[in-house]
Order: sequence, then C-alpha cells, then structure tokens
Amino acid sequence: MAERERIANYFAALSAAEPGSFLLTDDAALLTSPPGQSIVITTDSVIAGIHLPVDAKPHHFAQKLVRRNLSDLAAMGAVPWRYLLNLHTPPGLGDDWIAQFAAALAEEQRLFGMVLVGGDTTSSEAPIHFTLTCLGLANDTTLRRNGAYVDDDVYVSGTLGDAAYALYQLQHNMAIEEALFQRYVAPTPRLELGQMLVGIATSAIDISDGLLADLSQLLQASKVGANLVRDILPLHPYVANIIAKDANAWRFPLSGGDDYELLFTASPEQRTRIEAIAQAVQLPLTRIGIITSALGITLRDAKGEIIPLPELGWEYR
Amino acid sequence: MAERERIANYFAALSAAEPGSFLLTDDAALLTSPPGQSIVITTDSVIAGIHLPVDAKPHHFAQKLVRRNLSDLAAMGAVPWRYLLNLHTPPGLGDDWIAQFAAALAEEQRLFGMVLVGGDTTSSEAPIHFTLTCLGLANDTTLRRNGAYVDDDVYVSGTLGDAAYALYQLQHNMAIEEALFQRYVAPTPRLELGQMLVGIATSAIDISDGLLADLSQLLQASKVGANLVRDILPLHPYVANIIAKDANAWRFPLSGGDDYELLFTASPEQRTRIEAIAQAVQLPLTRIGIITSALGITLRDAKGEIIPLPELGWEYR
Repeated sequence: MAERERIANYFAALSAAEPGSFLLTDDAALLTSPPGQSIVITTDSVIAGIHLPVDAKPHHFAQKLVRRNLSDLAAMGAVPWRYLLNLHTPPGLGDDWIAQFAAALAEEQRLFGMVLVGGDTTSSEAPIHFTLTCLGLANDTTLRRNGAYVDDDVYVSGTLGDAAYALYQLQHNMAIEEALFQRYVAPTPRLELGQMLVGIATSAIDISDGLLADLSQLLQASKVGANLVRDILPLHPYVANIIAKDANAWRFPLSGGDDYELLFTASPEQRTRIEAIAQAVQLPLTRIGIITSALGITLRDAKGEIIPLPELGWEYR
Repeated sequence: MAERERIANYFAALSAAEPGSFLLTDDAALLTSPPGQSIVITTDSVIAGIHLPVDAKPHHFAQKLVRRNLSDLAAMGAVPWRYLLNLHTPPGLGDDWIAQFAAALAEEQRLFGMVLVGGDTTSSEAPIHFTLTCLGLANDTTLRRNGAYVDDDVYVSGTLGDAAYALYQLQHNMAIEEALFQRYVAPTPRLELGQMLVGIATSAIDISDGLLADLSQLLQASKVGANLVRDILPLHPYVANIIAKDANAWRFPLSGGDDYELLFTASPEQRTRIEAIAQAVQLPLTRIGIITSALGITLRDAKGEIIPLPELGWEYR
C-alpha cells in the first residue's frame, strides 16, 4: 500500500476528533489551545534495536512511543492533548503490521485522551524509527526540575529497576517475568500523580535514564545535593529477590532506566497531603532521602554506611 | 562528547529567546501563543541517502530540514515561531560536524525568526536521521488545499524542475549547476508569498512531490479538476535548455519534487492583486491553467494538443 493510502486507511480516523487536523489531508494542522491554558510540548523517539527489541510487536511500539512522551508531560504536571507522529519504516514492513500498530495507537489515544494531528511517513532501509511530538495543556504553573530546597523530602513513585531487569533478562535470553516485561514495553506515565503534585512538589523529573542519573539532573538544576538511603528504595518483589541473592543487582533500581516513575521533592510540611495523594492515585510514594546544601548524591545503606556510587545511568557525566 | 554535553554546548543557546524552553534543561517546553493567534504545526524529516546525499555538508542538513518544514507553513500562510528537533546520529559523527550543523541552524533561526524549544538526541547505527517539528502562528483564516473553485486561475511561484534536475545530475555524476544544486539543498520557503495570499487565494499547497502530484492532491481536496498548459510552465534557463534538447526532460518540471514553490488558485478577479503581490515578493507568479468541473488534470501543449500524463510524482496513486 502506498504511504498516502496507509495514512488515509489507518491513521486519518485517529485525527477525527480535532477539526484542525483536517483529517491529515493538508500541509499542517491548525490548533487553538483553550483560553488561559499554555501548551507543554515534548518529543521522543523509539528506534528498533535501541528502545525496543527489533522483533517487538506493533502494539509494543505504539505503547512505548506514546508513554515515553507522556511521561515527560507527567513530570510537568500537564494534561495530554494532541500529538504528531513520524513513521519511518523499512520497506518490508507490511500493511498488517501497520494496521496493528494503528489499532494500538487508537487504544493509547482513548486511554490518555489524545488526538493525532499530523506527521510524516518515509520508507527507508534503516530499522523501524518512530518519533512522537506530544502537546499537553497546563496552567501557568507546572512542575519543574529546578525548585528543590534544602531539607525537602525526596520521593519516588512505584517501584524501581523493573524495566532494567526485564531488559537484562531479554538480553541474556532468560525466562522473562511478564510483569516486569510489561513495565519495560508499556510503562505507565504517572500523569494523574504529576497533575496532583502541581503546587505541592517543589521539583519533579521522570526516571527515564535511571534514579541516580535523573536525580543528578534534578539536583544540578536546583543547585542542591541529596542524601539517599539505598535500602528503602521501593522494589518489585521479583527485583528484591534478585538483590537478596546478589548485591550487584542494586544497579537495576539505582541506574536502570525506562521505569518512567516520577522522582520529586516536597517540603516535610506536605507529608500528610502526599500520603493522601498516594491513596488517591493508588500508587506507593516512597520517601527515599532528603535534599542537602552539599552538592552531589550521598548514598547510604540501612546501617548508615556510605556506599560508593556505582556507574550512573548511561546519560550521566 | 556525551549527548547531554552536546545539547548544552551547541543547542542550548538556540533556545535562549524563549523562556519556556528552559534552555533545554527540563522535561518539556511551556509555550503560550500570542492572544488571538492559533498555532499551525507540521513535522518532516531529513534522512541521509533519501532526502540528501549521505555526504552532504552539515549546513545542507540544517537548511533542508528547516526549509522543508517552513514550506508547509508557507502553504498555510503562517508565520514561523518555534521548533523542536530530533537528532539521531551515527556514532562516528564528530563534534565538529555537530558544531557546524548547530551554527547553520542558528543562521536559519535568524533568517526565519524561529526559536528551538525542545528535542531529543539518540546515537544509532542508522544513517543521519533528523526530524523537525515546526510551530507557526496564524489568524483563524489560513490557506487550505480544499477551496479551489471552477474557473479559478492556477498559479505557480518561481520555477519548476530545478531541484529534480540537480538531483538527476548528482545521481549521474554529472557536473552540477550550482544554482540548481542550491535549489535542491536550500530551497526557499515562500513564506511571505503565503502570508500575502491569505484571503486572496482560494487554495494552496507547496510543491514537494512534483507539480502533477501536488496539484492532484489539491484537486482531490477541492473536488475539482484542472486544465494546464505545459509550455507556459516557468523554467530556469538551464532546465529550459535541457528540455529544448530532449522533450523527456519535461518530467523534471512536471513530476520532479523538492522545489518547494507554492501552487495556488484564485478567482480571475484577483489577477491585478496577484500581479502586485508578485512585485512585492519579487518572485514570478505564473498563471499555468484553470480549474474545471471535470475531475483530473488535462495537460496540453502550446498548440492545444493533449499530452498523455507521464508518471506522476513518487507519492501519487
């Protein structure tokens, strides 16, 4: 099927809810944000062999692509709104594959309240290469990375290291724990949490490169440091079990990426409110440390012994 | 240099004019469009080996990437505003190359009044793969593809076939005519023309896939047809010369892509105004045909003989 035909057959329907998309038949889309709302915009890609295995299923590509982007909106406290999609596919990728991908995208739109408004398609010999640009809505106040204060509590949502351990299992041809694999291919963007933290958290970032790497980004932006207690990091029972057998496995929760949990800071005065938010979003929010005026990260075990920092996430320098 | 360092060293400065870019240090950008203005948004990629030769210079990548996108804004009559950039580079691409690319991007920003507000970087084994998502501003009225009426004049700006002939010369290792090569690597988006045509043209599209292919898109959207006279198509003297020697070379202006001229329609009552616009933008605007109620394109030579349509541009079906 020609590219234009694929757009008409599989993707035009995904744009129907936004008149300014012109059903993907014009040169660009025309968008008007609701009065009083600002646009939060971010973009991220999924490349086969880098962000997903080359043989991942069409719905895995749709889920990971959408959710990596939505996680950035979550970290700003924004509400998903519209998106554009660049689909660059190898010539051998058939219409069936594209149809399944589009069906999965439709489900993602429905789940997260987004509408497709534009994009491009190209056939090239390179591996599957998809980019999504995501527009969200926010009031003037958003969560930022640069607002952490000394003595703030440091929190993390959910559990850490799940996706990294799933990837490790994949790469070593081990039997994969399905719950962890789902965390790797279809992470849950913490949108509701991010939105509820606006005005309460002093800073926030999503964990895409690993706890230490992303915390380091937040600390640099805020010009502060942090004390962390390793042994209270929230872990999936499966990951906790691996760590119990091999202390080297602490690298998964400390440095593994792709969990897309939120890391945030808040004044100790907010503890009761944050407990209430944890209840409301049905997600553990664990206090893992405290912000310090001394720069850098100091990591301790349960006994208070300092642990030399392992190699940080792959983006760290 | 690590990717984060490249962003800080080469790209952060390109975002300084928009406070909501947070100097590319946060999870997303926060944009507020000026009161009463809508956002026009489009996205397009440049892949080495497809849209440019693999050995094209860094500034060619910057120019082609920016201008292909801006041409879509031109076709809507929008004013360039902000953009996001996905940079996916092979590991061997050095810092020098990136520095030159960023310098060329800075020049494009200056020329066209845009500011970088976000993006992503990935290193992968695939060829250079850049995507730009471009936001423009417009009033509620924009140019569209679907407004051509029966008996409207059909116009095209500039000259046709220049870029396609340059590409042909490149692919056949011929000596390249510099003026045509520039048209291929650094097309001029017809922004000023597009903006002046709002309220005057009944429809418009930019010519990226070839005159016949893009006219066909406009006609389908408008549910009309067109009569065209081949022998009055505006040609660069170099292309006219090739055609004088070989009638097969008509395929360059008829089906060659990448010229990024505007194709538009207007009521005959607008002829005087359109002549004035041509003067104002210092660009030939050539009347090449007329809109008909009979669907499809009828192409004639100077004597009125019907010419069987050659294979249309590569996107046509």
